[in-house]
Amino acid sequence: MSTSSAKHKVIFDTDPGVDDAMALYFALAHTDIDVIGITTTFGNVTVEQATTNALYLTRIAGRAIPVAQGVNVPFAKAPGTPPDFIHGADGLGNLPSRIEAGGQAEPLSAAEFIVKMARQHPGEITLVAVGPLGNLGLALKLEPQLPKLLKQVVLMAGAVDEPGNVSPVAEANVWNDPDAADLVFTAGWDLTMVGLDVTHRVVLLSKFFERLAQHHKHVAMDTLHHAVMFYSDFYSSIRPDMGHGCYGHDVLAFVWLVAPELFKTQSGRVRVATEGIANGQTMMAKLAIPYPQAGWEADKPETRVCMEVDAAACEKLIAEVLASDWLLAPLSK
Amino acid sequence: MSTSSAKHKVIFDTDPGVDDAMALYFALAHTDIDVIGITTTFGNVTVEQATTNALYLTRIAGRAIPVAQGVNVPFAKAPGTPPDFIHGADGLGNLPSRIEAGGQAEPLSAAEFIVKMARQHPGEITLVAVGPLGNLGLALKLEPQLPKLLKQVVLMAGAVDEPGNVSPVAEANVWNDPDAADLVFTAGWDLTMVGLDVTHRVVLLSKFFERLAQHHKHVAMDTLHHAVMFYSDFYSSIRPDMGHGCYGHDVLAFVWLVAPELFKTQSGRVRVATEGIANGQTMMAKLAIPYPQAGWEADKPETRVCMEVDAAACEKLIAEVLASDWLLAPLSK
Repeated sequence: MSTSSAKHKVIFDTDPGVDDAMALYFALAHTDIDVIGITTTFGNVTVEQATTNALYLTRIAGRAIPVAQGVNVPFAKAPGTPPDFIHGADGLGNLPSRIEAGGQAEPLSAAEFIVKMARQHPGEITLVAVGPLGNLGLALKLEPQLPKLLKQVVLMAGAVDEPGNVSPVAEANVWNDPDAADLVFTAGWDLTMVGLDVTHRVVLLSKFFERLAQHHKHVAMDTLHHAVMFYSDFYSSIRPDMGHGCYGHDVLAFVWLVAPELFKTQSGRVRVATEGIANGQTMMAKLAIPYPQAGWEADKPETRVCMEVDAAACEKLIAEVLASDWLLAPLSK
Repeated sequence: MSTSSAKHKVIFDTDPGVDDAMALYFALAHTDIDVIGITTTFGNVTVEQATTNALYLTRIAGRAIPVAQGVNVPFAKAPGTPPDFIHGADGLGNLPSRIEAGGQAEPLSAAEFIVKMARQHPGEITLVAVGPLGNLGLALKLEPQLPKLLKQVVLMAGAVDEPGNVSPVAEANVWNDPDAADLVFTAGWDLTMVGLDVTHRVVLLSKFFERLAQHHKHVAMDTLHHAVMFYSDFYSSIRPDMGHGCYGHDVLAFVWLVAPELFKTQSGRVRVATEGIANGQTMMAKLAIPYPQAGWEADKPETRVCMEVDAAACEKLIAEVLASDWLLAPLSK
């Protein structure tokens, strides 16, 4: 938590979602991150619920941050159903009640918001995307120069060597909109992929969030704790060996942003399978050899892929940041 | 080289091809293997050239083994062009000349031959396939009970963790006919996959074949040596770090058959991508968790996949077997 004068100016593209909420609170709590806008997408929940949750989570933490609502269906794939057994029907573990927090979404779409902000602050904005990538795909269609206008893009998405979580080879965010993801991976920006190869290494136990809730005694941290309990129930049901907890998924995109030294990365061309049984798989060309299969030409842009992580150091950093004195009085209207 | 009374009764499905020739000679030389028939396919060469080479290689080694010609194009994918820069236009490194060796193919197709032999010897035949899998796919269509009629199937095919050789994710045999391969991987026989995860661990230097040629002073081993020199030139051009040599690819299917203790295997459902940029990829479900992506249902049959290999022990075994006293006078008509 150094207090560098050059804060990361971030637009956060998200579908909250429990681990999205965790990531958002890490970003709000970290002194080097300035969240200048939030864009929402379908994924863990509908886009309408994602917008509701983005407004709620920020405002109960005392922040008025612009929220622009984004796409509600994939680019090309048939729409699916949000996994209410993972994040709850409301995306936050089925909260028993919500306080009055007010707020409403911006009058322009997520893609338009991204393009507008990128043009206003050329070369300054980091886009951190932790859901399906339709908003980025659409923003690229609206503004082909976007890769030059943004400083960098960091994704929680994909898997290279690690098995997938929606098929043996596909990660959920990419699988939810593989066509948009392939656009993003081939667009040519400064791109970092924080995928299952590292997020499955970092397990955050629900007790960790219980302690944070006791420490802060604040509605925002109580909300996160409730959500994490539900999310951890799901993970315990499929991976009883991991204890009552969850993977660090989305928050690790922000951890990479502020502490890249905790990761080992490998760069290579990444493409996405957009059809059939491999649908949604992220594939990386690790070797610089020619291939007869089309789509793997050497002139394609490279992605920096996180392959290894210092899990203990990540957990320590997340604990320190979330336990810091960052929560403000909730906004009510 | 134990001389068990229960020899492996093998039909060898092949597209010779240099490493196919090496595999064939290992099989002919090994006292526990009885090659009762050869079926040919397109792949490294056209199917006509594969048939010519199968007859030539067996007959110059003094063996009259039935050869049945198989498919000349993939099940569904558009046909490609044989890679003459890898195996030579003739599949054997552009031999400067051939002796008169006679012989002609059987009057029935490869698939019909496989079905006929399997019905004649139910539960006895091991099918070792080291090319694209169209003959096995067609045989399955002709005789849906084939998985019960064969003893087992051993493939040189695919890659799980190891990068592919025709794309970052696809191995050439599977990529050459992905639809046939997916039929084979889901047919439900006793199936072993010997893929790039192990064949890329075993490098056979061209000097090794030079010594064998000097040892035997026989046209068959001279032919193999010539072919390996050409094949090794190709590998040296793309992988200068490996020395003048080649991967053990096809021969390792037979090494697994006679010495499975040299391999570590993992079993799981294997499927093949049959379209798009992942085309020809073999994917294995390593975890027993449910997936929303169709095609990964838990009731699919499993494949035994070779994941690790004792490379030094393989090389020693191949050397011993090929140096043994197995070559007979060439047949001439």
